[in-house]
Amino acid sequence: MAYNIVPLTELVSQFERLPGIGKKTAFRLAFSILEQPPERAQKFAEALINAREKIHFCKSCQALTDGELCQICSDEARDRSIICVVEDPKDVMAFERTREYKGLYHVLHGAISPLDNIGPDQLRIKELMARLSDSAVEEIIMATNPTVEGEATASYISRLVKPLGIKVTRLAYGVPVGGDLEYADEFTLARAIEGRNEI
Amino acid sequence: MAYNIVPLTELVSQFERLPGIGKKTAFRLAFSILEQPPERAQKFAEALINAREKIHFCKSCQALTDGELCQICSDEARDRSIICVVEDPKDVMAFERTREYKGLYHVLHGAISPLDNIGPDQLRIKELMARLSDSAVEEIIMATNPTVEGEATASYISRLVKPLGIKVTRLAYGVPVGGDLEYADEFTLARAIEGRNEI
Repeated sequence: MAYNIVPLTELVSQFERLPGIGKKTAFRLAFSILEQPPERAQKFAEALINAREKIHFCKSCQALTDGELCQICSDEARDRSIICVVEDPKDVMAFERTREYKGLYHVLHGAISPLDNIGPDQLRIKELMARLSDSAVEEIIMATNPTVEGEATASYISRLVKPLGIKVTRLAYGVPVGGDLEYADEFTLARAIEGRNEI
Repeated sequence: MAYNIVPLTELVSQFERLPGIGKKTAFRLAFSILEQPPERAQKFAEALINAREKIHFCKSCQALTDGELCQICSDEARDRSIICVVEDPKDVMAFERTREYKGLYHVLHGAISPLDNIGPDQLRIKELMARLSDSAVEEIIMATNPTVEGEATASYISRLVKPLGIKVTRLAYGVPVGGDLEYADEFTLARAIEGRNEI
């Protein structure tokens, strides 16, 4: 009979199911729980259940929130004439870290990808169109990823939105700030030359 | 006001308190919880609480167990005349993985370390001596770590145990199996020559 402490093995296997956590790390994490006071495990457990139960998608922009509307949609100070369309809730956080953008967002929850069986109907495009029909939106920034799928999604949505008389823009392509030109790929460099600005 | 989803931030900070988990990884792990069905978070939470509540130290050997006695102490097939003394419950698991050792264990939960204010009284040495006084133990294997603290602990305990007429042994020092002699340190090599065996 192999040496086995059931509740420990169970905890290790839960940690192991997390992305990027292997058997050894899972063991180390499980032991760290055993070494701490029971209140820590209790708090961790509550945080897990709380996060999973309370967080859902914002009724308007489909980003993550624990309220009915997310913090951004319910902030009266944001510019309601501009919507930044992103693929993932994490992208909203990335843009918010810049502290530059003051408009609203719309999260598609994916990008059009026929190979993965994801068509426009699997994305939150209907919800975007509904927002456009009854609001004073003047510009849509397509901020989907700079990949084939992101491009396809951006051009699909721009074809839907343009007839409404709303301006559609796309994030600028170019060399990343702080990057080294030597290591930039040819596609990025070509786009950076194409989009050059006068200084 | 910074963008903040309270239950998510709370979960991220719980992950961040685990050893070796930084801010970015904590975010990734927290998002993976949100992306999975609520039952997964529930199971994870239960495993955390269960492990912390049910696992305690074996009444006899001080290893981890969810029963009164651990699996090894309550196994009638184990050789009760020999006790392997280790510093940490993880060491028991390491020895069990060898599938070679058939005796019992005793976990000290540390090693004597004056610099960290850990003296013999902070270790489970009393419990070891109690086990020796009323059982048929013939040999103690000192399997503390090959460090200054581990050595000090081994020699302290051997001085206590020898007067009882019980044989005290120490793990062999030498080159690790599969290792490369070129990279072995001089202390290990010196001990390996000292402990050489006829072939």
